[in-house]
Amino acid sequence: MKLREVGEDALLASLLRDLPISHAVIAAAGDDCAVVESPGRKNLLVLKTDCVVDKIHFASATEPILVGWKAMMRALSDFAAISAVPQFALITLIVPAARSTSWVKKLYRGLRRAAARFDVSVVGGETSATRGPAAISVSVTGYVEKDRWISRSGGKKGDDLFVTGRLGGSLRGKHLRFVPRITESRWLTKNFRVHAMMDLSDGLGADLPRLAKASKLGFKIDMEKLPLSPGAKIENAISDGEDYELLFAIPPRNRESLQREWKQKFPKLRLTRIGSLNRKSQIANRKLPRGYVHFK
Amino acid sequence: MKLREVGEDALLASLLRDLPISHAVIAAAGDDCAVVESPGRKNLLVLKTDCVVDKIHFASATEPILVGWKAMMRALSDFAAISAVPQFALITLIVPAARSTSWVKKLYRGLRRAAARFDVSVVGGETSATRGPAAISVSVTGYVEKDRWISRSGGKKGDDLFVTGRLGGSLRGKHLRFVPRITESRWLTKNFRVHAMMDLSDGLGADLPRLAKASKLGFKIDMEKLPLSPGAKIENAISDGEDYELLFAIPPRNRESLQREWKQKFPKLRLTRIGSLNRKSQIANRKLPRGYVHFK
Repeated sequence: MKLREVGEDALLASLLRDLPISHAVIAAAGDDCAVVESPGRKNLLVLKTDCVVDKIHFASATEPILVGWKAMMRALSDFAAISAVPQFALITLIVPAARSTSWVKKLYRGLRRAAARFDVSVVGGETSATRGPAAISVSVTGYVEKDRWISRSGGKKGDDLFVTGRLGGSLRGKHLRFVPRITESRWLTKNFRVHAMMDLSDGLGADLPRLAKASKLGFKIDMEKLPLSPGAKIENAISDGEDYELLFAIPPRNRESLQREWKQKFPKLRLTRIGSLNRKSQIANRKLPRGYVHFK
Repeated sequence: MKLREVGEDALLASLLRDLPISHAVIAAAGDDCAVVESPGRKNLLVLKTDCVVDKIHFASATEPILVGWKAMMRALSDFAAISAVPQFALITLIVPAARSTSWVKKLYRGLRRAAARFDVSVVGGETSATRGPAAISVSVTGYVEKDRWISRSGGKKGDDLFVTGRLGGSLRGKHLRFVPRITESRWLTKNFRVHAMMDLSDGLGADLPRLAKASKLGFKIDMEKLPLSPGAKIENAISDGEDYELLFAIPPRNRESLQREWKQKFPKLRLTRIGSLNRKSQIANRKLPRGYVHFK
């Protein structure tokens, strides 16, 4: 069977399911990052790899500085997802010989600029030639305090569900310029008891069910409450993906203080309560002008 | 200028030279691995990324299990190079949709088998489609005790130079089946004061000058003493590359005990004294049957 018929996610899941996991590993494939315990340390080691490929994640003519920015920020967004602090990055460039050196230098400038934004040190790199399109793989390690690590699975029945920012339409430009919500995520876990969190990379329609399922719950959301990017429709917010916003679950008793303090701390970034975690899933206002939108 | 005209190594060096390095980073690009200090820890954090690309590092028809093995072992060989212990691996697969799922599964079996050989946990992975040839990127983190980390730069004048195993002809099969010299490297630093070490990946002719230069010394070697793989000639030992053997510098007062204890501990693996570190470089017997061989 060809790979295109199976789907990468399904295959990866099946490949990683069989892996022998040592005792030190407390979260691996399936959550946003791998999280590892080191004996005698109060912090957990966090590891994440991600890649962008020409013609898949960016158009060949895209400004290379933006390609580099995106390649780094995708991996860092997964640190935001679990409230971890990224520290060190390794970069693998797989580049056809026909690309110009100025393209590669600009790409690196984007990678570097993105890393510097969050005080991440680029400590190593490899390059390889290829006879195909360019690919950039970024691996990041960092840490999270044991009591501030947030997985997808800690959601409780009745928790409010919040999203940061606006959703949908990322391919019109945001996917190349987004800033992962690391500052916001760290602020949240410093000041509130967040139960479950993730970053929205595949669209709310794919990601929310993952968080709910990991927490062994359903969700109740009101489609008309979704915060939309300018020009985006509800189905874009559900299905487009690449929002790189946070989705998190938090007890409703924190609702008012969270909303008040958020507004003071991040006046330019919207925070929206889109619904709650529930025993059974329920979607309000699912009949929308352009019709029914599937939650996977 | 096109990338093919500059060369990847030169470009990578120039890219990484500009990187801002935080105080925690004690070795980065240019040595075999990145090595990082964490406050209050006795061990150093070690990070390495590497990749193999279809048609560059392996033929398209190569057994995928061997491709996976090589992809993992290349990164682990750099741990051997500095006497570090690998612990966690992240894998990025960039695979064309037309490859079969059985190819990918066998590839993963090779990756897994190689990781298990050294108790490395594969803690995360990403897959991406590509319209080009397959590429596999492997990032590994681990540790080394502060007093056992061996860089390339610690060689002293008069040190003996040793290599493990036999050199040359790796492309006839060894490059897909080698076992990195981690056990040997760890044994060396447990029992001897090794001054400088690296793994031979680009051929002795390229790698030995790197070690000597990092140690600010020259080298004196006898070409006729080089341990040759079956069927290999001296120029193969110098230039083929992909030997994945250790090259190390050690005080001559350890020579006899090293050779005696090595023979007991690793009776099947040759250890050869090929020369010494010197103020000035000197190559004995450089006029060979098939002519002059360049050291870069």
